[in-house]
Amino acid sequence: MTVGTIRPGGRTARIRAAVLRAAADALVEHGFDRLDLADVARRAEVGKTTVYRRWGTAAGLVADLLEDMAEQSSPRTDTGSLAEDLRANAELVQRTLTDPRQGALFRAVIVAATCDSRAAEALHRFYAVRIAEWAPCVEQAVQREEVPPGTDAAEVIRAVSAPLYYRLLISGDPVDPATAERAAAAAVAAARAGVYIR
Amino acid sequence: MTVGTIRPGGRTARIRAAVLRAAADALVEHGFDRLDLADVARRAEVGKTTVYRRWGTAAGLVADLLEDMAEQSSPRTDTGSLAEDLRANAELVQRTLTDPRQGALFRAVIVAATCDSRAAEALHRFYAVRIAEWAPCVEQAVQREEVPPGTDAAEVIRAVSAPLYYRLLISGDPVDPATAERAAAAAVAAARAGVYIR
Repeated sequence: MTVGTIRPGGRTARIRAAVLRAAADALVEHGFDRLDLADVARRAEVGKTTVYRRWGTAAGLVADLLEDMAEQSSPRTDTGSLAEDLRANAELVQRTLTDPRQGALFRAVIVAATCDSRAAEALHRFYAVRIAEWAPCVEQAVQREEVPPGTDAAEVIRAVSAPLYYRLLISGDPVDPATAERAAAAAVAAARAGVYIR
Repeated sequence: MTVGTIRPGGRTARIRAAVLRAAADALVEHGFDRLDLADVARRAEVGKTTVYRRWGTAAGLVADLLEDMAEQSSPRTDTGSLAEDLRANAELVQRTLTDPRQGALFRAVIVAATCDSRAAEALHRFYAVRIAEWAPCVEQAVQREEVPPGTDAAEVIRAVSAPLYYRLLISGDPVDPATAERAAAAAVAAARAGVYIR
């Protein structure tokens, strides 16, 4: 176990970490529709009964995985410039979605959210956490007078990610660095023009 | 059968229309993961063997449904103003995604595309057709000098839809008319600023 994966807590926390890692592995390999709690227990080397008792269903497992992903997710960038901050955000999303493991994992949890309301709530909470983490970039840009007062910070952050997810899930066009750069630049241009004023 | 659903062709075309309508009904009710060819045959009052022979799998059925949706999809708006054209496009997408039947159908075919490569190809073709239908709005705006020469028309059209799909599938925020209006305005502002120049 490398330093990055050591977590506080005792046996319960260790079991959770092992089960969630196994759940992520299974989702990456097979997708949500074939996520099986017995298979996850086997991969995690944890008793099947423990997994069924604690997580109940595949959707329950995905919901807890998303909570963990929100807790473990990385802090925002702060460069002092809105254009640079949003470019860093777009690049992070682009790298995540094109990473073989992370990309497959996100696809799987998004599918889970379309099938199950508990998974959907967890997905929406995950993105609410990520949007709240990055919103101060826009709030500081308002203070620096880079964008107009009243600009909806959350909506600017959503606008940066949207074109990348659109390509991933909808149009199938490449989720490439040029798209990330363009998404960030578009959000800055629209924010400057006052489009996101509440 | 109302006038709007009469299609050219004989028995084969009638069977296809009945089966695709039944497939859409089943997708709206149960989603892609429970799409069953025998159930679709029953709903369409068509022999099970015909459905299996012609469409083979649930994904094959979704792929053909998407081809039909592309063929039947409505023409673009032409108001003579980029802002108005893109607003009409955004409103159309917003109404489609929030319509109970259409919204559920789109969710189901998007899920199908994450599970199966043939469905994914059909989904991408569907959106390529829709983007190509609306791209002339931007090309004409370039000619009218509303946006700079070299503006990537397809990318502007993708930008209009992206925030609506992001809310539908990712953040769970409402896909409301205000979001549609903002998505169109943002695409116009970014296009004017030269963000979409190839």
